Amino acid sequence: MARWDPNARERLERAALELFVRQGYDRTTVAEIAERAGLAKSTFFRHFADKREVLSGGDALVRLLTDAVAATPPGAGPRQAVEAALAAAGERAFTAERHGAVRERQQVVAANPELTERELLKREALATALTAALRERGTPDPAAGLTAELALLALRAALAAWTARPGQDFTGLALAELAALCEAAAAL
Amino acid sequence: MARWDPNARERLERAALELFVRQGYDRTTVAEIAERAGLAKSTFFRHFADKREVLSGGDALVRLLTDAVAATPPGAGPRQAVEAALAAAGERAFTAERHGAVRERQQVVAANPELTERELLKREALATALTAALRERGTPDPAAGLTAELALLALRAALAAWTARPGQDFTGLALAELAALCEAAAAL
Repeated sequence: MARWDPNARERLERAALELFVRQGYDRTTVAEIAERAGLAKSTFFRHFADKREVLSGGDALVRLLTDAVAATPPGAGPRQAVEAALAAAGERAFTAERHGAVRERQQVVAANPELTERELLKREALATALTAALRERGTPDPAAGLTAELALLALRAALAAWTARPGQDFTGLALAELAALCEAAAAL
Repeated sequence: MARWDPNARERLERAALELFVRQGYDRTTVAEIAERAGLAKSTFFRHFADKREVLSGGDALVRLLTDAVAATPPGAGPRQAVEAALAAAGERAFTAERHGAVRERQQVVAANPELTERELLKREALATALTAALRERGTPDPAAGLTAELALLALRAALAAWTARPGQDFTGLALAELAALCEAAAAL
């Protein structure tokens, strides 16, 4: 077995999800996940700190969203920057091909308090990172933190609607949620 | 020792805070906290699930804020409802007499990843409870969730400013933060 495998991370994530869905999160061990992925247990721990981490995918989403914010042209406002971030999530993370896996992942997380807790912490990390990315491109406080929270509210609502049934466009749902939030905010 | 002590909870919280500040969170045991409070260890566990819980105070704040939202006159909008909640926090939780204790608590929490994690989870529970309290009095979605998030952003920013130095009015700080957030939201 090669010490470095370009797909190890994805294989481990897929194997973990399959086992969690089939036999439950609690009854699945790291050794089983590694075996199913055809990798050594030590390889698992090069990629993830523990079993909880394997489903998080959080860092990838943080990078995806903050990179999109950073890549928005300087003249664009904070709302356009987070619209670009939500569109990036629709193009790269919440695609038609990944619908089944994302939905299964959400179900496993919802069924396990430990994973739900980790998910909430990742959400806070995402809010902090998005706020920092917006400040970085010149959005002042408190607009930076506010825009980041609105983007996360839109993302969460769109994700719930998108996973509920296949065949929907995530970006369209997320931008509609964001527009509704901005409209509600203007009316407060 | 009486089995039921009306001040047991507060005595345990105060004893825990004193020990955490003096000797550190990690080096303090539940037995020491109970001893310092003049109570049995079993009394500690009637009030708190574990050592992490003793500093949370989260449920009291949730009740304080949601009760204030529920008590706002029916004709008032969601923004007035969360303004009442922030004012209640200033009158009951973040008062001049409690400034020292609140500041020490914040420092202990910031110094311990385990406590910081618990704090973030409480924050999510607070967002959920405030959103539900707003819906209960007729605020539709997504305005309910949005208003709850704005209130929590204002509370967090005001708390950071308020604990930084004594002699400030929490309610004034929080309402100014909320006004700035609403102004920024209207401009998005």
